[in-house]
Amino acid sequence: MSLQTAAYAAQSETAPLAPWSLSRREPGAEDVLIEILYCGVCHTDIHFSRNEWGNAQYPMVPGHEIVGRVVRVGANVERWKVGDAVGIGCFVDSCRQCGPCRAGEEQYCEAGSTFTYNAPDKHMGGMTFGGYSTQITVDQHYLVRIPEGLPLDAAAPLLCAGITTFSPLRHWGVKEGTRVGVVGLGGLGHMAVKFARSMGAHVTVLSHSPGKEADAKRLGADAFVATHDPEVFERHAGQVDFILDTVSAPHDLNAYLGLLALDGNLVLVGLPDPTPVSAFPLILQRRSMSGSLIGGIRETQEMLDYCATKGITCDIEVIPMDKINEAYERMMRSDVRYRFVIDMASLK
Amino acid sequence: MSLQTAAYAAQSETAPLAPWSLSRREPGAEDVLIEILYCGVCHTDIHFSRNEWGNAQYPMVPGHEIVGRVVRVGANVERWKVGDAVGIGCFVDSCRQCGPCRAGEEQYCEAGSTFTYNAPDKHMGGMTFGGYSTQITVDQHYLVRIPEGLPLDAAAPLLCAGITTFSPLRHWGVKEGTRVGVVGLGGLGHMAVKFARSMGAHVTVLSHSPGKEADAKRLGADAFVATHDPEVFERHAGQVDFILDTVSAPHDLNAYLGLLALDGNLVLVGLPDPTPVSAFPLILQRRSMSGSLIGGIRETQEMLDYCATKGITCDIEVIPMDKINEAYERMMRSDVRYRFVIDMASLK
Repeated sequence: MSLQTAAYAAQSETAPLAPWSLSRREPGAEDVLIEILYCGVCHTDIHFSRNEWGNAQYPMVPGHEIVGRVVRVGANVERWKVGDAVGIGCFVDSCRQCGPCRAGEEQYCEAGSTFTYNAPDKHMGGMTFGGYSTQITVDQHYLVRIPEGLPLDAAAPLLCAGITTFSPLRHWGVKEGTRVGVVGLGGLGHMAVKFARSMGAHVTVLSHSPGKEADAKRLGADAFVATHDPEVFERHAGQVDFILDTVSAPHDLNAYLGLLALDGNLVLVGLPDPTPVSAFPLILQRRSMSGSLIGGIRETQEMLDYCATKGITCDIEVIPMDKINEAYERMMRSDVRYRFVIDMASLK
Repeated sequence: MSLQTAAYAAQSETAPLAPWSLSRREPGAEDVLIEILYCGVCHTDIHFSRNEWGNAQYPMVPGHEIVGRVVRVGANVERWKVGDAVGIGCFVDSCRQCGPCRAGEEQYCEAGSTFTYNAPDKHMGGMTFGGYSTQITVDQHYLVRIPEGLPLDAAAPLLCAGITTFSPLRHWGVKEGTRVGVVGLGGLGHMAVKFARSMGAHVTVLSHSPGKEADAKRLGADAFVATHDPEVFERHAGQVDFILDTVSAPHDLNAYLGLLALDGNLVLVGLPDPTPVSAFPLILQRRSMSGSLIGGIRETQEMLDYCATKGITCDIEVIPMDKINEAYERMMRSDVRYRFVIDMASLK
């Protein structure tokens, strides 16, 4: 038995997304069946559906910023009850045995966590299908609770854009007085500004779009640096302690490294193509460049609870499912402030 | 008044080093005059004397691994006495006011520390001249003491090769059980092996010269990986916690980053040309790439005292001054195990 489920899928790397029907598994003893209410639209969805990373399998149903309600639970499920508001992020399983899994950092699972879409599906065979669909069956250990008080639509992008920026800020100890630079003011960048500010940091947004200054300030930034003028890299050399770089387009990392003070760290959460990095900016001020990948289940729950306490959500534009291709085009032009969220009622 | 001093200098970027005579300042109240006994030969000396970094001023007298004896002290000098064995490393002054200087990390002086050679000389005008010479006048605060029991010749390279490897191992907390990779088994690499091993680390040497395996083991390495076979990067993926990369020749940093476990760090102490770095190896296991520059005066003294306690010195080949050009040629062929040290008696 399986559950027929309405979805939107890409059938090839050049095809627009279009209606499709997929099968979800009947919930097993450890599973939870969720009615999907909202799904955020991440840049990764575009990369994958257009096979930009070379590993796409079709049909592909993107979506890993999922919010819904529990509609059925398996025999061994005690933590979740019908009606609970829950979230699913970028992965739906992992090995549970390795060091990172045992430490609650399943995103770094040594066997590779099972991504929410375009990953081998050990229950159904074939590949996993994501949140551009009306329901999903997930193991109870890979869910998080959407706390009371968070709007379900604006909470959806927290499952990827939120945790991806929250986790490195926490991991590297950003706190009161830390001088934080946020590179790029998009879906991730605008969350980074909100989080860093809420942690007491002094936040500078670095963006190639001078027109985003007012928005940066509204979101909580203390300062704004328009990076289209290369001279700013000289003027602001050595002035920040921590940079969260959310940009996936190619950019000169050496210039940004030069903005860091002694022992500063630039953390990549976007995925630009390989860029020449010089040893000089690293060595001359003992700087570091790091990467960070989403966050584990426990930290994602922490982040959601933190958002509820601090009143932090994503700035979103809600769209019906059939506007997804248009939304992709607008994202390619950076024409979204700051995240599209699909209202899945439009697919029912 | 000034002190005429025998030296070897490069007169241009293409000229071999040849005998020359320079003037040292008479020691002022804060100064110490030192008779130079030994000077190590660092790869940097070749880079500078051949103007490979584009900022060379001629005549140039290289040398920043200097060991000698105090022969005269200024009126305000209490700490040093005639006859003391002392060392001078890569810098002879700094601003003393900035955060890094006050923290004893003068190598990161915000105004720029004064390098031992090829830097503006604020006392004499012109440029500073290094240790390929018979005497030098230095401010008392920029000296370190060579502890009893360290041979003066084999201690000389500790002033650069030693502190450059010791400092990052300490800064990033290498200790009992840390899995350390050392890339390159040259002047710096062989010291990194000795230090890491002495700190209780499990040490793997990664070298493109399979012939160095026996030597690596003799120096204390637990394992050796010959990197000419690209397949080793797959086989050893994720197996070390910390990499000290001492290689200045171009190499694929992404491959080495892949050897790091979760949260691992690759620290550059060599200066390869800018190399394309991919975000993937950094992001997928929250890895870091950092740089580290020599060490401050306090830490250099700590390192020398540590060496005396642990019986650590550099493996050297002592040469007379007039063999310096031949030594450079041999260094270009990696034909030195592991550091040339000039016996300055040969210049007197």
